[in-house]
Amino acid sequence: MSKVAARRLKGFRDFLPDEMAARIRVMDVSREVFESFGFQPVETPILEYSEVLLGKYGDEGERQIYRFIDQGGRDVCLRFDLTVPLARLVAMNPDLPMPFKRYQVGRVFRGERPKRGRFREFVQCDIDIVGTESLTADAECVAVGAALLDALGVNGYVIRLNHRGILNALLEGLGIADSAPLFRQLDKLEKIGREGVAVGLSVEAGLPTEAIDSILSFAETRGETLEVLDRVSSMIPENRHEPISEVREVIEALAAYGVSVDSWTLDLSIARGIDYYTGMVFETALRDQPEFGSIMSGGRYDGLIGMMTGRPVPAVGISMGLDRLLAALAESSAALPALPTLDAVVIAFGKEGFPAAQQIARTLREAGLRAEVSHDHHKVGKQYRYASRKRARHAVILGEAEQAKSVVRLKDLGRRTEKELPLPEAVAQIRANRG
Amino acid sequence: MSKVAARRLKGFRDFLPDEMAARIRVMDVSREVFESFGFQPVETPILEYSEVLLGKYGDEGERQIYRFIDQGGRDVCLRFDLTVPLARLVAMNPDLPMPFKRYQVGRVFRGERPKRGRFREFVQCDIDIVGTESLTADAECVAVGAALLDALGVNGYVIRLNHRGILNALLEGLGIADSAPLFRQLDKLEKIGREGVAVGLSVEAGLPTEAIDSILSFAETRGETLEVLDRVSSMIPENRHEPISEVREVIEALAAYGVSVDSWTLDLSIARGIDYYTGMVFETALRDQPEFGSIMSGGRYDGLIGMMTGRPVPAVGISMGLDRLLAALAESSAALPALPTLDAVVIAFGKEGFPAAQQIARTLREAGLRAEVSHDHHKVGKQYRYASRKRARHAVILGEAEQAKSVVRLKDLGRRTEKELPLPEAVAQIRANRG
Repeated sequence: MSKVAARRLKGFRDFLPDEMAARIRVMDVSREVFESFGFQPVETPILEYSEVLLGKYGDEGERQIYRFIDQGGRDVCLRFDLTVPLARLVAMNPDLPMPFKRYQVGRVFRGERPKRGRFREFVQCDIDIVGTESLTADAECVAVGAALLDALGVNGYVIRLNHRGILNALLEGLGIADSAPLFRQLDKLEKIGREGVAVGLSVEAGLPTEAIDSILSFAETRGETLEVLDRVSSMIPENRHEPISEVREVIEALAAYGVSVDSWTLDLSIARGIDYYTGMVFETALRDQPEFGSIMSGGRYDGLIGMMTGRPVPAVGISMGLDRLLAALAESSAALPALPTLDAVVIAFGKEGFPAAQQIARTLREAGLRAEVSHDHHKVGKQYRYASRKRARHAVILGEAEQAKSVVRLKDLGRRTEKELPLPEAVAQIRANRG
Repeated sequence: MSKVAARRLKGFRDFLPDEMAARIRVMDVSREVFESFGFQPVETPILEYSEVLLGKYGDEGERQIYRFIDQGGRDVCLRFDLTVPLARLVAMNPDLPMPFKRYQVGRVFRGERPKRGRFREFVQCDIDIVGTESLTADAECVAVGAALLDALGVNGYVIRLNHRGILNALLEGLGIADSAPLFRQLDKLEKIGREGVAVGLSVEAGLPTEAIDSILSFAETRGETLEVLDRVSSMIPENRHEPISEVREVIEALAAYGVSVDSWTLDLSIARGIDYYTGMVFETALRDQPEFGSIMSGGRYDGLIGMMTGRPVPAVGISMGLDRLLAALAESSAALPALPTLDAVVIAFGKEGFPAAQQIARTLREAGLRAEVSHDHHKVGKQYRYASRKRARHAVILGEAEQAKSVVRLKDLGRRTEKELPLPEAVAQIRANRG
């Protein structure tokens, strides 16, 4: 038999059944939490015209986009996030009722260097609120994000908030007009440290040393939130205080949503590396695992949709990275969910016994249970080994002796107990053991 | 504002919330039915090395594959189905316990001409049983497929069964050694008709007219299953009767699984257009909408995994096409599921009233309900319009009058009734109305 190499692309992953349990749970819980806040689902394609995606993320992002010419000569890209496709969807559906609160759970693709918690294909769980400038929408995104992490039992996360307008005001004071390269450098602060960013700001963004010092000291301002906001107010001109009041308003709304003050902080170093943000920006770190970077990020992007509609449509959103979160949890002591239990393997006595065994399995399935008969039904011992490998909770046996007595033998494979009882009672027993 | 065209690729689709309800339901029901038979979930990447995918589907399939060179110079493809990636997964995980029963729900990509029910990106719901030659596995795939369509309330489907060995035996009798081009032509019988296939068999497969007549008459044999099998037995040499006994065995096992005789039929014209099938093949037509083609297909492929492992690993599977099924159901009179209901919009009286309204919404969410406060909370009328657009079941109002009496006003927006009652009772009422 000629042999082809079985290889998988670096940065792309397979998930076997045991790993799927946690993924499915995160997706289910996301859906539930998002819907509890009135968000509704959409789906968009994996492939988009390149002109739709390009020019939105900034140079660094766009270098990571998978782009090619398809069989029909079309210039296409794999989606880089779910936000720009949402903008296209909104532009193509001008009659969508606004504000439009949508959620989307889907794979995105970034050709960056794979490392811990960083993959080339990963799943984002996004919510966005389109069509309102109300700052309660910004707060709602943070509140839903916190509710999701709480529902997933994630401990020790902190959502860091900032406003690009504050950084912009500071830069303006320093005579810097183009903030995009600076935001991209500042975004690396946690990853490459103060020195690295200082070099980047000098070489890539072309800033003088004094400006760099001012920016970094500013970004590193720490303290009690309202105090920090007061200090910031004194550092930027009065006519640029709007972003500061916006932050105050978001903070007030967070309280209305009941978001614990322990789960967020104001962090003036948060800039986000993507070009389209215009107002509030969010990132989320795990306190004990900062090396994983942000597990949930987002912000306000009031200009993006307008690029496609021609009229401004304000929007804000947040996106949880399922793969990075699970990679971090897998390395922590957090308990990850297990696969749903197989309730029973019904033992068949050879090919002749298959129909009777399958009949029992059907009865169990009709009662809402998970049950199967092994396809290797020639040796009983093999079937028990199969049941044990599949971690089945029970084995059900209908041999000649049991048939004569109109019962089945029910083995509890966990407790290693067994008893004979009529099938309906066995069904009830198996259901009861599901707990 | 400079404007970028908002365009979507042909054959690719967006799904707005109302369309998502049915998609989510089909995916949830698939998962439930697959797990009830002991299948376990896996996921594999959207992108694969080209060498993994190519050489498995046949020329026609491979012309439809999205293939490109990525940023790192790797020759890659978007997956064409979930079967070849499964074969790679099995080859890369030699310790997987066998038989391995896995399910996978995911998007696949085929650059074919879009038409009714045929898309370039679509979702497949697959089950496969790897590592057993037992024909009960073939029957189980058909049984699970039928159980899935039944659970989805699909009426009037018929699963057509055939065995490639029967066609091969006939061809051998006619002196034809290479059956692959013939299978690809025969696969179009329903699509392009007898005449079209006759031309194809002559031009593409190079067969003489008499052979073509024999094959087509054979393929069109109709009648009661066991009679047809007897007739087939008389037409092919005795030493090639193995496939016929295999079909008989699968039919017997279908009865053991309780599959209704109305839901399947033996159809000697079913060949499947993909190269890797080696034994039983399945297709599923909707009786009243045959123009949609097969909504669920599969078969046995005992050679595919061996191409990557170097040792033969038998396998059989079936795949339901979610998009084609839903496209057909949308054009039929079948009732599609609706989105989960938003239980309540809580009306806020201006910015000052937002915290109190959000507090009520939190109480509702904590009780497992879906509730939100509009972000446009400045005008009460606008909030009612929002509630109506979101099809919320209730509005909850806490104005000054209600606050004074320690009650809320609960409006049932469907029944157009309202009453004042304490919040806990309102919560209970909303829950009760959920049914």
